[in-house]
Amino acid sequence: MSELVTAGMVVIGDEILSGRTKDRNIGHLADMLTAVGIELREVRIVSDDEAAIVEAVNALRVRNTYVFTTGGIGPTHDDITADSIARAFGRPCDYDEKAYHLLEKHYASRGTEFSEARKRMARMPVGVEHIENPISVAPGFRVENVYVMAGVPAIFQAMLDNVIPTLKTGAKLISETVPSSQSEGAIGGPLGEIQAAHPETIIGSYPKYQDGTFWTEIVVRSRSAEALATAVDEIRAMLASIPDRQRAKG
Amino acid sequence: MSELVTAGMVVIGDEILSGRTKDRNIGHLADMLTAVGIELREVRIVSDDEAAIVEAVNALRVRNTYVFTTGGIGPTHDDITADSIARAFGRPCDYDEKAYHLLEKHYASRGTEFSEARKRMARMPVGVEHIENPISVAPGFRVENVYVMAGVPAIFQAMLDNVIPTLKTGAKLISETVPSSQSEGAIGGPLGEIQAAHPETIIGSYPKYQDGTFWTEIVVRSRSAEALATAVDEIRAMLASIPDRQRAKG
Repeated sequence: MSELVTAGMVVIGDEILSGRTKDRNIGHLADMLTAVGIELREVRIVSDDEAAIVEAVNALRVRNTYVFTTGGIGPTHDDITADSIARAFGRPCDYDEKAYHLLEKHYASRGTEFSEARKRMARMPVGVEHIENPISVAPGFRVENVYVMAGVPAIFQAMLDNVIPTLKTGAKLISETVPSSQSEGAIGGPLGEIQAAHPETIIGSYPKYQDGTFWTEIVVRSRSAEALATAVDEIRAMLASIPDRQRAKG
Repeated sequence: MSELVTAGMVVIGDEILSGRTKDRNIGHLADMLTAVGIELREVRIVSDDEAAIVEAVNALRVRNTYVFTTGGIGPTHDDITADSIARAFGRPCDYDEKAYHLLEKHYASRGTEFSEARKRMARMPVGVEHIENPISVAPGFRVENVYVMAGVPAIFQAMLDNVIPTLKTGAKLISETVPSSQSEGAIGGPLGEIQAAHPETIIGSYPKYQDGTFWTEIVVRSRSAEALATAVDEIRAMLASIPDRQRAKG
């Protein structure tokens, strides 16, 4: 019999508690974990406050296989998650060399100043492993069983896609990516209908920008190869049916 | 000076943790509390599990002015909130006479059987006050500073509308949003300095990403209109002083 694999989640952010931002990461994580047979046991939404973050992370990490945190790893003064996680583990927090160079190179390639604020995104507890961020470069990180990720939904989802395959799970999630020259705005409605018609899949769309071109990656995930194939076919048909006059804009 | 009025929230439901239902009550409660000057400090989403509910309710009720719970007061076998709240307060849980008659009358008027399952909705800790349910009759209830309400969003919202006017409320938090074409990385340093110089404000910055463009929303909150205005002026001046060449990228 499979061992029970459980998870806790800590959502960090005053903007969620004030209502200014409506969280979307809880629902996404819940869907993804369910799909791979990991049981999400508890979610805590806490303030950008070190004591609150430390308490929540420490409570959940000892009683679950995994803990996922979102939020507070950006460049501004209210992004205190890295320092708080370090505190929770009793480790120092410092500039991570690999992350620092990655970000330094990234900003140099864009001709943008590697400001003190941006350098903050290289701050991590010592001895962590990075979680790749294919959307905006600044990595998340893992310390022991705690995965610290971004709060911006598109970045969180992309980071999670890199994390999920590394976890102990109950059932393997398979996925297929359908690139589209369309923007999210052009396909969002029909894509939502396809999602609703296929509850056994989790469909996400991720905006891409490269060399002056906008495009979208649609990712379909499922535990069932058949369900995956059916949804992918419908998505391809939907994309092919969009009239050319809608294709130009963002 | 106004006393700080705080709140905790406990969202009860396996269906939220599995992703099957996406919670909407957290965002609604956050908006409502912010509007009346009550600070939502923490939200916990827990399973339909007595020990989990008891732990969350007991943790939050001693450290906040109010606690609001949603979910688990329906008629089915997994609706165990009433019994769990009773356990948290060390009180017996039994059929509340007033609630029982209310429901009995309601089902009789509809020619519907007042089944054992429906009778469950009359179970409450002894000695509570009802919270009226104008949508589907079955009342919520209050015990000490804990308000136990429905999970169905329309019913929760209607119950909350009856509760809010009875609460101690704090000074209203006012806020102003300053959008900026800058990225967080470009403004993080100077913004942090402005925050440090204005401790009576709470300044947050929220990265936005839409259709290939990165930008930032800066939100300034304060209980003092004067403090708010001063900080906003400084932020506008800071933004205006950033050279154009830094403006383009993320």
